[in-house]
Amino acid sequence: MSAFTRPGTYDYNATVFSPDGRLYQVEYVTELLNRGATIIGIKCPEGVVLASEENAEPLEETEHSLKIFQIDNHIGVAIVGLGSDARILIQKAREEAQSNKLTYDEPIDVETITKKSSNIQQVYTQHGGGRPFGAALIVAGVDKTGPHIFCTHQSGTYKAYKATSLGAGRETVQTQLIEQYKENMTLNDTIILAINCLKNSMETRQTTAKITIAIIPTTTKQIKILTDTETEKFINQTPS
Amino acid sequence: MSAFTRPGTYDYNATVFSPDGRLYQVEYVTELLNRGATIIGIKCPEGVVLASEENAEPLEETEHSLKIFQIDNHIGVAIVGLGSDARILIQKAREEAQSNKLTYDEPIDVETITKKSSNIQQVYTQHGGGRPFGAALIVAGVDKTGPHIFCTHQSGTYKAYKATSLGAGRETVQTQLIEQYKENMTLNDTIILAINCLKNSMETRQTTAKITIAIIPTTTKQIKILTDTETEKFINQTPS
Amino acid sequence: MSAFTRPGTYDYNATVFSPDGRLYQVEYVTELLNRGATIIGIKCPEGVVLASEENAEPLEETEHSLKIFQIDNHIGVAIVGLGSDARILIQKAREEAQSNKLTYDEPIDVETITKKSSNIQQVYTQHGGGRPFGAALIVAGVDKTGPHIFCTHQSGTYKAYKATSLGAGRETVQTQLIEQYKENMTLNDTIILAINCLKNSMETRQTTAKITIAIIPTTTKQIKILTDTETEKFINQTPS
Amino acid sequence: MSAFTRPGTYDYNATVFSPDGRLYQVEYVTELLNRGATIIGIKCPEGVVLASEENAEPLEETEHSLKIFQIDNHIGVAIVGLGSDARILIQKAREEAQSNKLTYDEPIDVETITKKSSNIQQVYTQHGGGRPFGAALIVAGVDKTGPHIFCTHQSGTYKAYKATSLGAGRETVQTQLIEQYKENMTLNDTIILAINCLKNSMETRQTTAKITIAIIPTTTKQIKILTDTETEKFINQTPS
Amino acid sequence: MSAFTRPGTYDYNATVFSPDGRLYQVEYVTELLNRGATIIGIKCPEGVVLASEENAEPLEETEHSLKIFQIDNHIGVAIVGLGSDARILIQKAREEAQSNKLTYDEPIDVETITKKSSNIQQVYTQHGGGRPFGAALIVAGVDKTGPHIFCTHQSGTYKAYKATSLGAGRETVQTQLIEQYKENMTLNDTIILAINCLKNSMETRQTTAKITIAIIPTTTKQIKILTDTETEKFINQTPS
Amino acid sequence: MSAFTRPGTYDYNATVFSPDGRLYQVEYVTELLNRGATIIGIKCPEGVVLASEENAEPLEETEHSLKIFQIDNHIGVAIVGLGSDARILIQKAREEAQSNKLTYDEPIDVETITKKSSNIQQVYTQHGGGRPFGAALIVAGVDKTGPHIFCTHQSGTYKAYKATSLGAGRETVQTQLIEQYKENMTLNDTIILAINCLKNSMETRQTTAKITIAIIPTTTKQIKILTDTETEKFINQTPS
Amino acid sequence: MSAFTRPGTYDYNATVFSPDGRLYQVEYVTELLNRGATIIGIKCPEGVVLASEENAEPLEETEHSLKIFQIDNHIGVAIVGLGSDARILIQKAREEAQSNKLTYDEPIDVETITKKSSNIQQVYTQHGGGRPFGAALIVAGVDKTGPHIFCTHQSGTYKAYKATSLGAGRETVQTQLIEQYKENMTLNDTIILAINCLKNSMETRQTTAKITIAIIPTTTKQIKILTDTETEKFINQTPS
Repeated sequence: MSAFTRPGTYDYNATVFSPDGRLYQVEYVTELLNRGATIIGIKCPEGVVLASEENAEPLEETEHSLKIFQIDNHIGVAIVGLGSDARILIQKAREEAQSNKLTYDEPIDVETITKKSSNIQQVYTQHGGGRPFGAALIVAGVDKTGPHIFCTHQSGTYKAYKATSLGAGRETVQTQLIEQYKENMTLNDTIILAINCLKNSMETRQTTAKITIAIIPTTTKQIKILTDTETEKFINQTPS
Repeated sequence: MSAFTRPGTYDYNATVFSPDGRLYQVEYVTELLNRGATIIGIKCPEGVVLASEENAEPLEETEHSLKIFQIDNHIGVAIVGLGSDARILIQKAREEAQSNKLTYDEPIDVETITKKSSNIQQVYTQHGGGRPFGAALIVAGVDKTGPHIFCTHQSGTYKAYKATSLGAGRETVQTQLIEQYKENMTLNDTIILAINCLKNSMETRQTTAKITIAIIPTTTKQIKILTDTETEKFINQTPS
Repeated sequence: MSAFTRPGTYDYNATVFSPDGRLYQVEYVTELLNRGATIIGIKCPEGVVLASEENAEPLEETEHSLKIFQIDNHIGVAIVGLGSDARILIQKAREEAQSNKLTYDEPIDVETITKKSSNIQQVYTQHGGGRPFGAALIVAGVDKTGPHIFCTHQSGTYKAYKATSLGAGRETVQTQLIEQYKENMTLNDTIILAINCLKNSMETRQTTAKITIAIIPTTTKQIKILTDTETEKFINQTPS
Repeated sequence: MSAFTRPGTYDYNATVFSPDGRLYQVEYVTELLNRGATIIGIKCPEGVVLASEENAEPLEETEHSLKIFQIDNHIGVAIVGLGSDARILIQKAREEAQSNKLTYDEPIDVETITKKSSNIQQVYTQHGGGRPFGAALIVAGVDKTGPHIFCTHQSGTYKAYKATSLGAGRETVQTQLIEQYKENMTLNDTIILAINCLKNSMETRQTTAKITIAIIPTTTKQIKILTDTETEKFINQTPS
Repeated sequence: MSAFTRPGTYDYNATVFSPDGRLYQVEYVTELLNRGATIIGIKCPEGVVLASEENAEPLEETEHSLKIFQIDNHIGVAIVGLGSDARILIQKAREEAQSNKLTYDEPIDVETITKKSSNIQQVYTQHGGGRPFGAALIVAGVDKTGPHIFCTHQSGTYKAYKATSLGAGRETVQTQLIEQYKENMTLNDTIILAINCLKNSMETRQTTAKITIAIIPTTTKQIKILTDTETEKFINQTPS
Repeated sequence: MSAFTRPGTYDYNATVFSPDGRLYQVEYVTELLNRGATIIGIKCPEGVVLASEENAEPLEETEHSLKIFQIDNHIGVAIVGLGSDARILIQKAREEAQSNKLTYDEPIDVETITKKSSNIQQVYTQHGGGRPFGAALIVAGVDKTGPHIFCTHQSGTYKAYKATSLGAGRETVQTQLIEQYKENMTLNDTIILAINCLKNSMETRQTTAKITIAIIPTTTKQIKILTDTETEKFINQTPS
Repeated sequence: MSAFTRPGTYDYNATVFSPDGRLYQVEYVTELLNRGATIIGIKCPEGVVLASEENAEPLEETEHSLKIFQIDNHIGVAIVGLGSDARILIQKAREEAQSNKLTYDEPIDVETITKKSSNIQQVYTQHGGGRPFGAALIVAGVDKTGPHIFCTHQSGTYKAYKATSLGAGRETVQTQLIEQYKENMTLNDTIILAINCLKNSMETRQTTAKITIAIIPTTTKQIKILTDTETEKFINQTPS
């Protein structure tokens, strides 16, 4: 918060600009996202990889990931922030994907689904009677133009990335990704890079969490969440 | 409240983020829930168990539980918080269950009903003109994928559990559940564990209350609220 | 009000939770109800009894009760609080009762009418643009499952009772009801208990008021408001 | 206003309860009504009488009463408070009366018209976006159950009276009515009592005003506003 | 403003009563009207007269009156306050007059048009989302019951007058009207009285303005705005 | 602003009267208009003239006037204030003109278009949820009753003028117009007067700007914006 | 912000004028735009050029421009400010362009698309319930009347330019454009001028960014975003 110079009373409403042209309500969500479990999205010629920390409570069922969700066969998202807000975006994205299939008889583009989701987020930053979504998504998918990673922002902007991350470990992860990302990595190496980033980030923050990995290979264009056993194998291959 | 560091005036409205990205109105409901009668949900291979304390006033009719309600043959909920708010969620859940049966000719999934109920809760945390629901639910049911326990949060998030609890006794109960829960308990042992948790928790808080037990065996997929006599038998089997 | 620890500014709106999870607007109505004329509802195997104090101004017509109203042949209510607010609830309840008769060709259940009325009350505690109802009802009726007494709360909750009361005399009346209520009383004894409670309560508060009695015997399932002469006879039978 | 103990800021809105459960906006209207010209309604076996002070400015036309209005042949009202607000209620009452005649082919009951008018007043005390009506009515009429006087309150409550009054002279008038009202007075004696009350009240307040009298005899069930000459005759019969 | 005793914050909204039951927003409009050009309406057996001061800027076209407008052949209005607000009322009145003619095939009554216009004004004093009309009208007309003068108030009340006035000169004019008005004046004498009142009032305020006169004779029931020459003739007949 | 005596908090909303009956939001717009480029409208027997200063930035296209716009063949407007607000009024006026042509098969009257535009402006000064238009128009046109100049005000009032002006140079221009305007000037002399006023006004304010002239001759009833060359010729004819 | 003299509390809402007739919320957006990446639009007889700085994060995909977008074959826009807000305007502009083609069977005019987009921006500065768009556009296109550059403002105004710029480098760029812009430059020289302006501006601000260039030649009326190689060639031709 140190960067905020006396927001005064310009910060109660997403529909009020501060004198320096900022939307504080939108910026406050960043604090929320920075406390969330780390998520990562990386693309390579062979496909895309989503990775997340999963912090389960004792006695919580861990069968289903709480951070990575399928939108369509060829598209998945990793979420950070309020799970309930993200779920609304996910549901709407799933409906858009189905509707696209019915209307055009072809799978929706990864950017199209990202844009439609971001448009919903934008509305809540410009119109009164609500609050911005307290969640951001990394959208990963493979469409007719190849593998794609998009990262949405609570303001409703989105950008395409080769590799990116959000959440508590973002700072550490970004440093490692910039150092180690290579455009021609295999899908396996990409998975190992994602896991390694999460592991290092958790070490830095002295926390532990289960790691979930989802992949969408360009060959199948079919999302697959790795089993615990499969993930374990990759974890064992990461440099300690 | 000690954990709240000067919420200032960010806390009047569920649609305003505080500078650290929190929704205080949603958090304040937790205080309300922590004063409620304790409820417990536990699953085992043979089914699911819901247990609750029932604090009746003198001359109050105690024929019907005020804490445990049937949603459909195969699904029940235990509630904590404002009974009136919870009732609205229960009614909508019942309608969804009936509507699912009519549309798809099969009983609704436990997670689906949980999600639909949570979606309603989410809306009230993001849109103005109202307040978040002052209630949370433990949803227990048996569907085609087996027994399930979900716990909803006033923010609209929900999670799956093997065993969980809410209300005034939650802290004590959770400790005991973590120690004593075993994945392969019989339904009878599960009932006894639930009762034992409630009894210990009430002892700790030096209160007394009637205990209500509901079960949904995987064999019948039919919710059954135990009679006072049946419950008494199980109480007598709990270690003192 | 002594129990309210600095409500600050959380208390202007029924749709704002205080930091300790309370809805002060809803609680403030209790003060209003505690100033109202006392009402009592008691059930016994032979039927249900409603009793009320009626404080008429000089020259006021006292032909019709201002506190006890018929909803349907088999259901009556006693009200406390703002008469205008209660009248709205009564009208809607009458419409529901008629509508039930037309739709299902049978008299509406006592709990159903209570729930529908309470649902209306709940809406006004969660949605903006209005205020909670400043009234509560004791609903008494006899349906196919026997005699029932329900008491609604301004929050939209309701509970079933064997005997209960609201208004200025509630504290005194409850003490006496707990001491003297017996499950197997005759309807006549129940009437006398209700009158006796009112009389004692008025003595305690050093006030006088006319007493109105309504009964719904299980034999007739037909509400009857006693004439002044009939009531006088019962008053004469109460212990002085 | 001396009775108001620091309303603080609970008094800006008819939809906010004060901590002691009061609606100050509704109560403030009483101050307005207490400044209005006095109106009186009295019933007797031979019919009903409405009487009012009429304070005309110089050069004002006094052909039509500004305080007493016909609703239907058999029903009239006397108004106090904002004339514009009262006019809205009068128009709606006239429409209800006509609509009743068309629907049921019989004149509307006096209580029914009173209730419908009061319902409109209630709405403005519970819903935002407006203010309570700044007016109250004495409704007088003769229907199939005989003569009736009702007095509506800005809160939306109404009560039946044998005789009642509102406005600046209310206190004096009520004292005299309680002393002198007799249930079996002739219509003529009732008119003289009403005039006498008004005269005494004006003397007390050291004001003068024209007096308007309307009667609805049970024989004709037809409202009649007395001419100045007729009224003068009755004035001459009142004890000085 | 000296009469206002600390309106505090009760005066921002036409839908808030002050503790003494006043609507300050409505009262504030009076200040606005008291600054407006003087308008006068007088009736006599031969018809009605409207008179107004017209304060034209240099180079302003003075062909059309800015203060007196025709509503229908037999009805005219003089306005005071915000011209734009008054124009809205005038338009609606014209539409009502046309609609009456089409529906009933006869010219609308003067009181009916006044009431419909006043109803619009009332709505803006009781419902939020707007402000009261900053204008008042003197309505003058001749209908089947003879000549009529009504004066509307920003609160939505209206009254019938023999002669009345509004605007900056009202105090002076009213004194003269009360002294000199006679019920049986000829139309010519009525015009001269109106002009004389305006002239005296302008002298008192040391201002000058053009005088506009409109008449509706009972013989023609047709409004006629006098030409400058015609008006000049009458001015020359007024006592200096 | 010196004339404003402590507007306090009555000035945030166009729908709140100050205690002296003013609408400050409407008045504040005057400050905005007084900073705008000067516009002038003058009529003469041969037609109407609109003139404006045009302050172009470097590299701005000056092909189209930013201050003078055609509404219909026979009507033009000059604008002052927010160009965006004025554009909305212009669009609606153009639509009204087209709609009039289609409905009545004749060109719309100049006053009618002015009134319709002013009605829109009035709405925004009486109803909440917006702000008054930050623009005023000089409407000039020739219809079947001859040449007309109207000037609209942000409050929604409008007046007819022989000659008028708005904007930064208004004070200087009005003085000159009052001195030099003659009712029987030729169209050419009228153009020269308009240009001369603008030139003098700019000299006084020590600014320079391009001058745009539009004329609507009574002979053609067709608006024509003069070319730079044509305007230059007239400029050269003005007295230095 | 130094130019703002105590905006007080007039600046929270785009629908409130300050006492000096300013809309602070609209002005605050300027601060936001002045922090954005520089964009430039220049026209010449052979077509139009859009140029922008593109500040990509590490690992961001830079395949698609984030600043320059195609609206229709013959129209492009460069954006500054919130990307999400601009995207909404772009989508609506694209829809308008398509709709125009379908309705009139010809490409939409550049000014028409600019006006429609600006109209949307105006609405959000005059109506409550939202905030002004935090974005401005330079619209460039070639239609049947030749090449055009328009620059929209967050207030909803727009102007035509020969050359213009927005964003952090605007001040430097404008100086250079005014010095070096010539009306008869070739398209190639225009591209080089745009690049040179951006380079100099970035040098001044000591920043680096990728440069994106889009052109619409009058010959093809088809927008073309230059490839990195093509842009590089032009960069090499700019004077160092």
